[in-house]
Amino acid sequence: MQVEIILTVNEMEDQLLVGKTAVVIDTLRATSTIVTALYYGAKLVEPKAGIVEARNRGKELKEGTYLLCGERNGIKVEGFDLGNSPLEYQPQVVSGKTVILSTTNGTKTIQRAMLAHRVLIGSLLNRSITMEEAINLGKDLVLCCSGTQGHFSLEDFVTAGAMISYLKNKGIQIQGDDRVQTAWLLYERYADDLVELMSCSQNGSRLVNIGQKADIEFCAQLDFFPLLCYFDGERVYY
Amino acid sequence: MQVEIILTVNEMEDQLLVGKTAVVIDTLRATSTIVTALYYGAKLVEPKAGIVEARNRGKELKEGTYLLCGERNGIKVEGFDLGNSPLEYQPQVVSGKTVILSTTNGTKTIQRAMLAHRVLIGSLLNRSITMEEAINLGKDLVLCCSGTQGHFSLEDFVTAGAMISYLKNKGIQIQGDDRVQTAWLLYERYADDLVELMSCSQNGSRLVNIGQKADIEFCAQLDFFPLLCYFDGERVYY
Repeated sequence: MQVEIILTVNEMEDQLLVGKTAVVIDTLRATSTIVTALYYGAKLVEPKAGIVEARNRGKELKEGTYLLCGERNGIKVEGFDLGNSPLEYQPQVVSGKTVILSTTNGTKTIQRAMLAHRVLIGSLLNRSITMEEAINLGKDLVLCCSGTQGHFSLEDFVTAGAMISYLKNKGIQIQGDDRVQTAWLLYERYADDLVELMSCSQNGSRLVNIGQKADIEFCAQLDFFPLLCYFDGERVYY
Repeated sequence: MQVEIILTVNEMEDQLLVGKTAVVIDTLRATSTIVTALYYGAKLVEPKAGIVEARNRGKELKEGTYLLCGERNGIKVEGFDLGNSPLEYQPQVVSGKTVILSTTNGTKTIQRAMLAHRVLIGSLLNRSITMEEAINLGKDLVLCCSGTQGHFSLEDFVTAGAMISYLKNKGIQIQGDDRVQTAWLLYERYADDLVELMSCSQNGSRLVNIGQKADIEFCAQLDFFPLLCYFDGERVYY
């Protein structure tokens, strides 16, 4: 299997996506939050790149059937129901609701990925089941790290490494460049220290500083939610 | 100290270099070879991006005073005296000679770096003394990984990590993004396994496949040659 890692949304050129299985990764926290929301009973998640776009979509839906969710630079958008901490997405809050989600990095990456043959929403929380589906689909794989405001993100990269580790452990022959090798090697030596590792990142240290280290601990739980999440160009569903 | 890592020569934009200390890294093998040649008595190293440029420069020098050296895709250029293996650069071969060197990636990166305030030639072989000079110079630091044919290179990245590790261990406060953290974290867990690590890279596995694993072992020797090497825009000297 040919595997590539895209480091930021800016690198997501058409020819890197077409015909492939794309897995979008925004570990802290958009894709972890999406997987959590769906596992806990949200009907759908609709990623929206812009805040206005998110509000307008809400106006099209019946009141009480949806939640407006998202952040800018880690802070909940004013007037929104929820921010971007997966810990907010409890069953009693999200069950049966459409989650309209707009985040700084992750939602842009998800929308950009739609040129791929199939788009999966990936995180540490649903690592193994997502890789099983990638194997089943039989296409080349592109792991799309969202990055942090256009820059390389440590936590997304090590999540890509966790995915590659799964494929290697299943005996899949991987053709990949030094990004793939580095992500894998990094994960191999930090698999037992993911919280410590992710706390060193720009996003992670910001969360620690604002008292939200619990988010990192939550998002680091490997295979906690064995849920396969697809994006069809408009909605994430399972 | 502000520290940045440039991952490939294509990323070397002017504003990332001007006013800074640049350390050029091409661990397998151009910068390791340059440090070796100078430590073993070469008078100067003149990096040339092109083969024709290298040959023409040779014609300007007195026969017997210079060596034409370099590779394309790892193979010695036809008619050149030496390739790009540091093991070829023995004292009896290089002593007193001007080394004209053209390689696939490293020499381009060195030439491109000349916009910086000061350009140092870095490798694992001269890691500590190079970082001591960076501290003394007191400027922001940019670690310029040459990469492999325009792509991210594992061995250059971990070498950057070894440099950051030195600075951190000296108590230098570093401002850097997730690239800096990742390179450092990678190095910290592979410091005792650098040969194994670098053998996983595209360059490294190619060297292993052509029977030149000894080159990797040589280039992995941390602080083996405590030699500070400067580039002045035309020549590397010490």
